[in-house]
Amino acid sequence: MNIWRVNLRSQKLSIEAEPENWKRLGGRGLCAKVLLDEVPPTCEPLGPKNKLVFATGLLLGYNTESDRLSIGGKSPLTGGIKEANAGGTTAQKMGALGIKALILEDQPEAKGWWILHLSKDGARFEPAGSTENPGTSLAGKGVYEAAEILQAVYGKSAALALIGPGGEMRLTAAGIQNLDKDGVPSRIAARGGLGAVMGAMGLKAIVFDAPLWEKPPLADPEAYRLALKKFMSILMALPQTEAYRDYGTAAMAQMCNWLGALPTRNYSSGTFEEVENISGEMLRSTILDRGGEGKPTHNCMAGCGIRCSNIYAGIDGKTVVAPLEYETIGLMGSNLGMPDLDIVARLNWEVNDLGLDSIEIGAAMGVAAEAGYMEFSDAESALRLVDEMRKGTPLGRILGCGAVVTGKVLGVTRVPAVKGQAMAAYEPRAIKGTGVTYATSPMGADHTAGLTIRAKIDHLDPMIQADLSRNAQLNMAGYDTLGACIFAGFGFAAAPESIRDLLNAKYGWSVGTGILQELGRECISLEREFNKQAGFTPAHDRLPEWMTKEALPPKNAVFDVPEEELDRVWG
Amino acid sequence: MNIWRVNLRSQKLSIEAEPENWKRLGGRGLCAKVLLDEVPPTCEPLGPKNKLVFATGLLLGYNTESDRLSIGGKSPLTGGIKEANAGGTTAQKMGALGIKALILEDQPEAKGWWILHLSKDGARFEPAGSTENPGTSLAGKGVYEAAEILQAVYGKSAALALIGPGGEMRLTAAGIQNLDKDGVPSRIAARGGLGAVMGAMGLKAIVFDAPLWEKPPLADPEAYRLALKKFMSILMALPQTEAYRDYGTAAMAQMCNWLGALPTRNYSSGTFEEVENISGEMLRSTILDRGGEGKPTHNCMAGCGIRCSNIYAGIDGKTVVAPLEYETIGLMGSNLGMPDLDIVARLNWEVNDLGLDSIEIGAAMGVAAEAGYMEFSDAESALRLVDEMRKGTPLGRILGCGAVVTGKVLGVTRVPAVKGQAMAAYEPRAIKGTGVTYATSPMGADHTAGLTIRAKIDHLDPMIQADLSRNAQLNMAGYDTLGACIFAGFGFAAAPESIRDLLNAKYGWSVGTGILQELGRECISLEREFNKQAGFTPAHDRLPEWMTKEALPPKNAVFDVPEEELDRVWG
Repeated sequence: MNIWRVNLRSQKLSIEAEPENWKRLGGRGLCAKVLLDEVPPTCEPLGPKNKLVFATGLLLGYNTESDRLSIGGKSPLTGGIKEANAGGTTAQKMGALGIKALILEDQPEAKGWWILHLSKDGARFEPAGSTENPGTSLAGKGVYEAAEILQAVYGKSAALALIGPGGEMRLTAAGIQNLDKDGVPSRIAARGGLGAVMGAMGLKAIVFDAPLWEKPPLADPEAYRLALKKFMSILMALPQTEAYRDYGTAAMAQMCNWLGALPTRNYSSGTFEEVENISGEMLRSTILDRGGEGKPTHNCMAGCGIRCSNIYAGIDGKTVVAPLEYETIGLMGSNLGMPDLDIVARLNWEVNDLGLDSIEIGAAMGVAAEAGYMEFSDAESALRLVDEMRKGTPLGRILGCGAVVTGKVLGVTRVPAVKGQAMAAYEPRAIKGTGVTYATSPMGADHTAGLTIRAKIDHLDPMIQADLSRNAQLNMAGYDTLGACIFAGFGFAAAPESIRDLLNAKYGWSVGTGILQELGRECISLEREFNKQAGFTPAHDRLPEWMTKEALPPKNAVFDVPEEELDRVWG
Repeated sequence: MNIWRVNLRSQKLSIEAEPENWKRLGGRGLCAKVLLDEVPPTCEPLGPKNKLVFATGLLLGYNTESDRLSIGGKSPLTGGIKEANAGGTTAQKMGALGIKALILEDQPEAKGWWILHLSKDGARFEPAGSTENPGTSLAGKGVYEAAEILQAVYGKSAALALIGPGGEMRLTAAGIQNLDKDGVPSRIAARGGLGAVMGAMGLKAIVFDAPLWEKPPLADPEAYRLALKKFMSILMALPQTEAYRDYGTAAMAQMCNWLGALPTRNYSSGTFEEVENISGEMLRSTILDRGGEGKPTHNCMAGCGIRCSNIYAGIDGKTVVAPLEYETIGLMGSNLGMPDLDIVARLNWEVNDLGLDSIEIGAAMGVAAEAGYMEFSDAESALRLVDEMRKGTPLGRILGCGAVVTGKVLGVTRVPAVKGQAMAAYEPRAIKGTGVTYATSPMGADHTAGLTIRAKIDHLDPMIQADLSRNAQLNMAGYDTLGACIFAGFGFAAAPESIRDLLNAKYGWSVGTGILQELGRECISLEREFNKQAGFTPAHDRLPEWMTKEALPPKNAVFDVPEEELDRVWG
């Protein structure tokens, strides 16, 4: 597999052999390597020196639920390094084109919007029209409509990575969306504003136009087959796999509520009195009752047997949004005091269509509610805020820049964020290990960087979280480098020798069972070095001050992990 | 003189003897000392751990044009330490009350607005009403009206420090205003958002209610008299003193234009084709033509002989604003393409009344113009933006948070700012020494931290600016610690032994002629230590990327001082 490098100014593609010292990495780790090698850490994130890296994981393409796409760049939201990943079909199509990583660099001189078409014939640019005249073009169009148009032109089998109006407006909560296996453009590399970076490049969409993948031979096909078989049997037998197959990530709502860690009304409570109405059980029964276009759960990537995803149907049985994930339920449900999955699904569709991160926007709306710009629990006022974003009004742009900017402009200091990025739907005062991750991850507050909720420990004890978080962060950075879904990670955690066996059989390597954490450590070291050069210090590895003082009902806990413990994570 | 400490939560005053190791400092240096000693550098600037320090300078009260007031706190605009100073009567009245420094700490639990009344009888709090019902209260009222009401209640002789609606809204471009000797509340400690810190304390105004000052005896009155006489004769004979007496700071408009350093249309040009219409000459002739309520120039502090200030009159001879300073002319005149002093004066009055920093707001409006929210040169659209600020609309709040937030939210990367603070009206690509100051000052981009425009060197040579800037920064930090006006500084520069003689005669010290830079070095060391602990690194000591690439007409210069040179300033 090669490195494809596309310059947005010259519109030229160069196809390069992968440098030897990039080969041991993929996904998030490869993003970090490329960015540290090629992007000045102090550069303006929306300027021409930033780059976007689309990287496939080390385990891509051979049926291990590891076909996630990593997208990396310097974040306009955090000012630090960023990797956001997504399921869907993009990484598989990159594999089919022989692209291990696509590097986008520089910016066009003239304004205007482009489609980048990649195929076996190379790269070509096609105009995507102007925002001023969206009627005749893709520019200005929502993600769903834009994806339909692109699929009509380029066929259903192409993969797409595209931005919505949020990315076009260079809003720093904008992500980059990808198609799921059914062609729905809701697999968003959501966090950190990478959609704004793509928008600053004048790029509305990338089309990965590839035939069926003729995969290159494995180094040891028989060893791979055996390792895969063993891994899948362990993964599929796990109770978590079953829970996610039945309820999707929404299963977390009740669990978080039980732990007092469900963000409610801008993080002012850890439980939500109407949690039953937004729970995984409610999600499942609603989907089953209404029929709809999908089974209760479905798979986002071809070949995945976990099927944690879902297709949420309206009362008429028609799809409202797919999928409806726990993070959105937490941030746009309980965090907005909203006890109705129909409303949450509607809000979710809207922010998807705008190409914005539902975590960041949900958090921003919670802050806006505290400032009086909407009423908690009031669907109408929430939808009005979404409408402001769609119209690109000043208020809409404020929200679209995320929770920290919203708090700053609207005069609210109770903002749940670290390094400029909003927290996910796990309250760090009630799950302090995840609070340590929020504080110390190079990514800013990000649950996928190292969630600790499943550890069987006292989540309120401040003194036992640092090691737990570090371990989780290393594992997650490892999984993200493999391209593995977090749920495949449960299988790898149960059978760590599988990673060793799969990698050795695929590449002819001879790595040991420690490879996961080795990859994780290399990845995070690169990321921390980038951030250090960008100006980050331990002073940035902190939760917001108010969370250290304001007790969270019902456990009445504050975040009291000592700063020394935080500094010990990477110290 | 004592330290007065007022707790906003308990509404209690304690009067403390000054700690021994604070005594050698005053003004900006004392602010830095108090903040580093007492405020956690990582604290939330608008939270209860921040403090506001009002400090008088070392040379206060004995006729050396050194009665400026320093206000310090952690800045909500930059996230670092901040000192902003102002002329007017506040420092003199503090002296009359025996207050060397006033330290405000903590925040009230309940919402609401207060007046803090300080007198020989101590401190008392009086309600200032609510923003919700401004008709019956001071809250929500503009600075001019609020000051009139306060003067009616507390008498004309009291000094005031108050905030406008901007500070009440906790906008991070809000300053703190003080009365000039005529009772006009336009002496603003403008920069860095300290008005928002005062707003977060629920404090609308501080009344310094003092009788005429019976000054404590000087250590050596005769030596002081001689030193003062010599200093004043040197100061008054300086050609700069004359220029400022005739034209005020507005004299800089033509000079900057000539150097290609006049910010024009959001820093896209260094010259303004209509500079004559906003020049010092035009200002003077307009005031002379129209008569008006003041002579061409006047003094802001009682006893000042420089008289750099002015009272700008409208066509009817009535005062529009006093004073109209160069920084405002640069930022709200040429930077907005506005060739009309009447408009600039009107804009100036409006932002004064809102209690906002005209530099930060002028820069933010320039950025907003680039984003299409106003037209350059168009008075009506500029006044519309001011109206948005007054109404506290989302767009108004964006602008009120300054240039960086405005750029971020409205999608503009061409923002002239460092460490979150907008540049003053000296283009750093044409006056590179001042660019070095902008980059490396602990204050963020701030011309008063070390302007280099008067040095007789090639301002475009990138390799000779670091030493020049360091020297200017040390001097300025020294002057700010003395409480000296920047123009008194011209006298001190011409007669450095005056500072030694004045300090020794006043305090019975035996300092040498190096005292100015010693004070400056101590001050900046304290500030840099605060910022270091707050998370600042050399990565933050940089100008914006676009200024290193985009050539500035007419000199077509970029900012090309090497990073090594920048790091050498304090390295």
